[in-house]
Parts: sequence; structure tokens; C-alpha cells
Amino acid sequence: MNPGFTGSPLDRADRLRSDVDGYAAVLSDWRARILTLDGLDPVVTADGGLAWSTIAEIHVEAELILLGLADEKPHFVPLVEAEGDVFRSPAIWRALSMLPAEDAAIYGTARSLIDWHNSHKYCGKCGGSTSLFRAGWGRKCTACAKEHFPRTDPVVIMLAEYDGKALIGRQSRFPPGNYSALAGFLEPGESMEEAVRREIHEEAGVQCVAVRYVTSQPWPFGGSQLMMACIAEAHGDAITLDTNELEDAMWVTKAQAKDALTGADARVFNAPPPFAIAHTLLKYWAEED
Amino acid sequence: MNPGFTGSPLDRADRLRSDVDGYAAVLSDWRARILTLDGLDPVVTADGGLAWSTIAEIHVEAELILLGLADEKPHFVPLVEAEGDVFRSPAIWRALSMLPAEDAAIYGTARSLIDWHNSHKYCGKCGGSTSLFRAGWGRKCTACAKEHFPRTDPVVIMLAEYDGKALIGRQSRFPPGNYSALAGFLEPGESMEEAVRREIHEEAGVQCVAVRYVTSQPWPFGGSQLMMACIAEAHGDAITLDTNELEDAMWVTKAQAKDALTGADARVFNAPPPFAIAHTLLKYWAEED
Repeated sequence: MNPGFTGSPLDRADRLRSDVDGYAAVLSDWRARILTLDGLDPVVTADGGLAWSTIAEIHVEAELILLGLADEKPHFVPLVEAEGDVFRSPAIWRALSMLPAEDAAIYGTARSLIDWHNSHKYCGKCGGSTSLFRAGWGRKCTACAKEHFPRTDPVVIMLAEYDGKALIGRQSRFPPGNYSALAGFLEPGESMEEAVRREIHEEAGVQCVAVRYVTSQPWPFGGSQLMMACIAEAHGDAITLDTNELEDAMWVTKAQAKDALTGADARVFNAPPPFAIAHTLLKYWAEED
Repeated sequence: MNPGFTGSPLDRADRLRSDVDGYAAVLSDWRARILTLDGLDPVVTADGGLAWSTIAEIHVEAELILLGLADEKPHFVPLVEAEGDVFRSPAIWRALSMLPAEDAAIYGTARSLIDWHNSHKYCGKCGGSTSLFRAGWGRKCTACAKEHFPRTDPVVIMLAEYDGKALIGRQSRFPPGNYSALAGFLEPGESMEEAVRREIHEEAGVQCVAVRYVTSQPWPFGGSQLMMACIAEAHGDAITLDTNELEDAMWVTKAQAKDALTGADARVFNAPPPFAIAHTLLKYWAEED
């Protein structure tokens, strides 16, 4: 299914993160590639890939994060002071539509890590300042020595299914006509399946029982998220909308989903872009027997 | 499959968390039930359930976390200063074996939330002190007003499968003879499926391709984790152990897994306890056609 932001060609080389000598060798490797970003946004070259520079081109005091190895070459991203925008700009949507899948996956990892560093400059436990360690895969408190590691928030994203139709919804901030799968953060103390049922019930008032997992993707906007895509069997099709969450929700047929995914003139809604797992999920469901 | 720590009977009543009047009414409800803990450990009553007290019995200044509603009664846990022990004591294992599934699920949620509050007393972004809000489902920075929400770390836990056998391993801290499924934290920028393949390769040197999701459970020790259980098809059975992670790993047959799960005298290893998803996963695999 190849959801967006998956398929990175880099070996994360976890072993190097805690290997002082090995990492020193990697840091002084002249073949190293340094990812160039515009704030937290990708820079796309004329040939449609991510922009890379050499280690000679970056500021000597730049803090580096080891993204991984490919063809023995170390790949880094410098830690920049930048705020991630949860609500993405059209420019970044266009850039992502151009990038090859492998490059989007590398970019997503880099963006999530930078965002994590910027939001964890202080220790949540004691308030002391933290500093980067483990090749950029951790921060350590300078006061209490507590170690912090990059975090990912699990999110459920799902279609309720009833009588051959799927439930989709739109938030008021979406462009006109756009609908997507319902989604929400998983909370402490619940399984993926429980979170799926709770979110569909909270947002649309629809009760579900059986939940099938379909696939997952990392999502690098607004931190680092793991999107877990599911299909849930609904008991009925009556909708009670939580208008704080959704502006509208509706049941669509497989033919209507296919029209939206192919951008057909007859479409009744606009589908999410291909790099969003809601697209992957809707396509999977529409093509299922 | 009913993995451990799932099946809480409480309605999380998300709507009340941001409803000032509604929450005030719930806080003054004399029917409220207050979960009693011993530090972060459960207190099990003579009839084998969780211990609850009334709102009259707790300290007037206690900060409360709303766990949810059942039979219209609000259920709270007081925020206590306590450190969670990642490496669990035999006493808590025994308590968990006694608790009904619904009670274990309530306890897990409470423990994860308390642990999150204690590790997020300060703002990671600015170092300011934070205070509880949203009925215990958030903390807000008193300096920069950044809102923080309870977090859960996704963890993959899996069996590699080859030629009818499954790969299990043991860490040196396990009791003698105990084996479990391999497991590890998902990292930013990877899907569940990618994390499964990476972890099996890092820990045991085994290459896998196809990954099937089986089920999930929340895990309340060492913070709040979402354990996602999978089975991965391996290319071969040669093991290269990462001795920093594992003391041993071995391939077992379905008959051997069944012997371990039933505690048969002929067993070649001791299986994880029923409330651990490794047990659920091993049982699912052993009973699969």
C-alpha cells in the first residue's frame, strides 16, 4: 500500500548513536550529506528531490542529527530553531506532491526530530535545561541527568462502515468540498481498537464494534505522529455531529469514493492528497471486495 | 482476544473536561468514587477488586483526575507524587493476576496519567512550571501558556515467523527460563511495519518482509505505552544476537508455545503472564491454522 512518508532508504544505524568512536568517525566523514531545509519546510531541487549540501558548507557550531546511512554515506540534518505549523501551507503541500516517496520519508523523519528538540529544551521533570546527545536521538537534562527520547503520538484514523458505505467528515478549516477519514489522538489506557470506537462515537455519534487495522504511516506535522488506519463496522447510520470537531459528516458509496480519488467531474467531495493515509485508507476500502 | 488492560467500563466523558459548569457539578457529586492506590500500585480488596473511597475521605486540597463515568457516577484518581518502577515487582504481578479485566484497565489508565503528570511538571519548551487543567487530561505552562496533553509511546512487539516456528527472546533481567516476544519503541519517521522489521533486524539479525498486525494493548509501566502486536515473515532462521538487548533468542514450534502457555511440565520456556500482550500474541499464533 506504501502510505506517504514510508520507505526511507536510510539505515538508522542505531548502533552508532551510543558508539563514541564510531560516531566520531561518521562526523568527520567528508562524504556526509547534510539535508537543507527552509525553516522546517523541504527545499526541492530542480530535478524534484530534496536538497543536500556537504559538511564543509555548514556552520561549524551546528548541532547535527544523524538520520542514517545510505551507500555508507552518513546523512545528517542540522538542528534549526523553527516552529512547526500544524496547519500546513499550500506551498508545503505542493512540495510534498513533487518529492519521491523515499525523499518524503527522509524529510518527515528530519522534521519530526527537529520539532521534538525544539519542544524539549527543558526537562519536564525538574525544569533544567537539556542538551542533545545520542547523535540527536535524545536530550539529557543538565540538572537532574534524566534522559529524554524522541516521542511519537499515536493517532487513530478510520472509516466507519455500514451497508456498503463509509463515513467521512470535514473540519471547518478544510478547503471547500474536502472530506477525510475521522481521526483523533489515542489516549493513555486504551487500545487502538478502543480509541477507534471512542473517536467515531464522540465525533459522529456512531456506535461500532469490530475494528480492522489496515496500515500505518508516520506524520511529521504538529510534532511526530503515528497514524494508524482502521475500518470499523457500525451498528447504524444515524449521525450526531460534535460540531466542535466536525463541520459535516456523510456516508459515501465505493463508487463515490473512487470518483473523489480519481478527481472525476462527478465527484461529490474532494479526497485527501496521496501522501495522506486517509487517501490510502479510502482507496483500500473502495477497492475491497 | 481481550488483551490485558483493555475493556474499561468507564465512559471517558471527554465533553466534561472542557465544560466548566458540567465539571463543577461532577466534582461536587457525593456519589463520586475515588480510586485508592499504594503509591502507584493497585490496592486489591478482599473480594479481588480495586479499592475505592468516597470524596469525603480524601484531602480537600488533593488534585483529581477524572477517569470517567459509570452508572452516572464520576470516578476519579487523586494525583499523587510517586515514581513508577519500570521493572515491576512480583507483588504488582500478583495483584494484576487477581484483578478482573475491567479493574486492570481502570488501574492502567490511572497509573499512566499520574506518571505523566509527575514527569511533566515543567514545560519542555520554556522551563516554566505547569499546572493541571482539563480535569487532569492536560497541563498548562504558567509562564508561556503552552498546553501539554498526556502522551503515549507506541511500541512494537512481535514474533518473526519462519518454517512454522516463531522467534522469541529473553533479556538478562527476566526470571530464569522466561522468554517473550521481541519489542521496541517505534521511532519518529517510521510506520509500525517499518519499526517491526527494524527491531527484529537490530535485535536478532533476522530480515523480514510482510508484517501482519494482530492486536494492541495499553501498558501502564514506565509511562504510558501502546503495545502493537504483529507477526512478521522472516527470510531465514539464522540469528545474530544483539547482546546489549537480548541474552538469548530461539525459534519455537506451535506445540512448544502451547506447552509454555499452559505451563506443561514438558515446556522448554516460561511464557509471559496473561495480562501481557506477548501472551495474547503467542496464543494467537500458536492457535492459528
